[in-house]
Amino acid sequence: MVETHEATVRFGVLNETGDTESRVALTPDIVTRLGKSGVSCLIERGAGAAANYTDDAYVAAGATVASRDEVIAAADALGFVDRPDAAVLAKAKAGTWIIGMLGSFTDADYIDALEKAGLVGVAIERLPRQLSSAQSMDEMTSQNSVMGYKAAIVAADAYASFLPMMTTAAGTIRPAKALVLGAGIAGLQAIGTLKRLGAVVTAYDVRPASKGEVESLGAKFLDLGLDFSAGQGEGGYARALSAEEQAAQQAAVDEKAAGFDIVITTAKVPGRKPPVLLTRAGVEGLKRGAVVVDCAASDLGGNVEGSTVGTQVTDGGVTIIGAPYLASGVATTASDLLARNVADVLAHFVRDGKLAQAPGEELDDALVVAGRAASATAAEK
Amino acid sequence: MVETHEATVRFGVLNETGDTESRVALTPDIVTRLGKSGVSCLIERGAGAAANYTDDAYVAAGATVASRDEVIAAADALGFVDRPDAAVLAKAKAGTWIIGMLGSFTDADYIDALEKAGLVGVAIERLPRQLSSAQSMDEMTSQNSVMGYKAAIVAADAYASFLPMMTTAAGTIRPAKALVLGAGIAGLQAIGTLKRLGAVVTAYDVRPASKGEVESLGAKFLDLGLDFSAGQGEGGYARALSAEEQAAQQAAVDEKAAGFDIVITTAKVPGRKPPVLLTRAGVEGLKRGAVVVDCAASDLGGNVEGSTVGTQVTDGGVTIIGAPYLASGVATTASDLLARNVADVLAHFVRDGKLAQAPGEELDDALVVAGRAASATAAEK
Repeated sequence: MVETHEATVRFGVLNETGDTESRVALTPDIVTRLGKSGVSCLIERGAGAAANYTDDAYVAAGATVASRDEVIAAADALGFVDRPDAAVLAKAKAGTWIIGMLGSFTDADYIDALEKAGLVGVAIERLPRQLSSAQSMDEMTSQNSVMGYKAAIVAADAYASFLPMMTTAAGTIRPAKALVLGAGIAGLQAIGTLKRLGAVVTAYDVRPASKGEVESLGAKFLDLGLDFSAGQGEGGYARALSAEEQAAQQAAVDEKAAGFDIVITTAKVPGRKPPVLLTRAGVEGLKRGAVVVDCAASDLGGNVEGSTVGTQVTDGGVTIIGAPYLASGVATTASDLLARNVADVLAHFVRDGKLAQAPGEELDDALVVAGRAASATAAEK
Repeated sequence: MVETHEATVRFGVLNETGDTESRVALTPDIVTRLGKSGVSCLIERGAGAAANYTDDAYVAAGATVASRDEVIAAADALGFVDRPDAAVLAKAKAGTWIIGMLGSFTDADYIDALEKAGLVGVAIERLPRQLSSAQSMDEMTSQNSVMGYKAAIVAADAYASFLPMMTTAAGTIRPAKALVLGAGIAGLQAIGTLKRLGAVVTAYDVRPASKGEVESLGAKFLDLGLDFSAGQGEGGYARALSAEEQAAQQAAVDEKAAGFDIVITTAKVPGRKPPVLLTRAGVEGLKRGAVVVDCAASDLGGNVEGSTVGTQVTDGGVTIIGAPYLASGVATTASDLLARNVADVLAHFVRDGKLAQAPGEELDDALVVAGRAASATAAEK
């Protein structure tokens, strides 16, 4: 970021707090940080409350606290945890930049709506994560990391025994055995947190590269005796398996899972129905008292067959927690990281004190999904 | 324990499950263990369910599963997590041994009732904890240990930030600063668990000996600049402070607490109103987002002024969790330890294949609070 003292770009953030959302896309620290890049901040009254940031704290950092409509009217760019609804889009003036997780991989209609309204859509889900210049913008990584941490804490809280081994005058408590299915960012953070708590951790991922990552955290890699060569998909995510591969994987995981006390599943594939990693037979094979946390639970299903959003206890005494909102449950840390991600995306587009696109530039081409500047602009450079 | 194959003592355990209790005073492992000491076990149908022990598991271990009335009628001794109510006492036949936390320090009427009903009352709260032969019977220690562990897990779950320090592409998250007030068994276990989770932990206790214990766990001891010499009370518990000492301690703690993100208070003094360790002023001084877990919360008050059983959030954004039932929240481990404690108390009184008192014997004299055998019996030996 270039230091400048003229605040010529106005960045607005709205209140997204709801039953399942406590995060906010701007924190007081980031207000200060953006100020140094020539960006002034507006935030809707109360937007940070659920993440423990008061209006006073934003004002102290130099932001303007205003009503929702005032923020929408005054902002050159609006930043979101998720994405704005139609009511916000209808109010935003043409040319406003909309920065968030826009769902561009799965919801073409939404992107069309942005386009028709003359808005500039910046889709963080399109971030080329491998670019080192993009890493501080990587909301998927930051929020999945928070999710994995919280999944381990939620599992520990729901589990009716100690996680660590403990030797006491009244006998020795054996450590909990935990299985993490899906060893991406979320899974690795879950492994690390479960290990901290003293559990004995095993993990599995379809990507061959994950074995080394899992083992470097001191966890065991689950050997299913199956070979899914080239498991790595585009953009660093796991690729989708074929139906046959999935069935073989499921059967093997179901069988192996029976020995574990805690199972955490983290295999979200953005915009697609999550793969079933543990079937009903697998759940039935778990011990009474076992706890399953399914981070991929959604209306489309989850990684655990039959899981729903919320907590259920099976007839066999297994607690299944369908928990798609875990990052929001650590609202302060999640917002701290997310606000930095969104601000760095915004700052990328601040050029000579103004918001501007540079067609042909890798990040610009990847992120801008609506209101793209004509490539002629690039030729002007 | 002497090995014998004649089961001549019948030990019964009832279902104590309720809104706040999931523990059970007998586990399948202990059924097997007691069998080797000539004790046969009876357990009320469903008594272990909330602790993840099925009736089938008890039967497989050699116990008889029966109705509540059948267990009461057949048992020579009944063991409890807590203590039986009047309805149970009315049904128990004269001469039945009642083993549990009988509240003998504070409820003389209850002990009178046992006496009048011709029951033998064995009060585990009277255990001389320093005796090495008593350590496997020490329910107070085992359950406080579980409570301290769970207090840390509950605090981590309620806290909206990470406990560990974390360095990410989107910035560094500082570790949570936790303060544990009361560094007995529960406090030490809370310290250990918070440390595992990566928090920076400070602790305080009125007992001078606790400084070394706290520091040996890698936590800092909070220096209040006050001197309560001879803070150690009878039986290894903290002694009650004078009103003046308490006020000075409170003011100092209130002031120091302001810098912490998590506060766990564990100063239960059996049978007495818990001391206030953090006043309203102290709570008001805490940061927005701070989490307080008051393990001593009760109808008599807690360690935190104004705390109630359950969760409240102050106007200043501080979450106070009044949590007197934390051990029950880790029902399986808590029951595993507690069942061993109760069984070892029972086994102590199994003499020549029968339940018998030995007046003059230290444990007998300490524990038997109703239906005491005349000391003549001792002379007979």
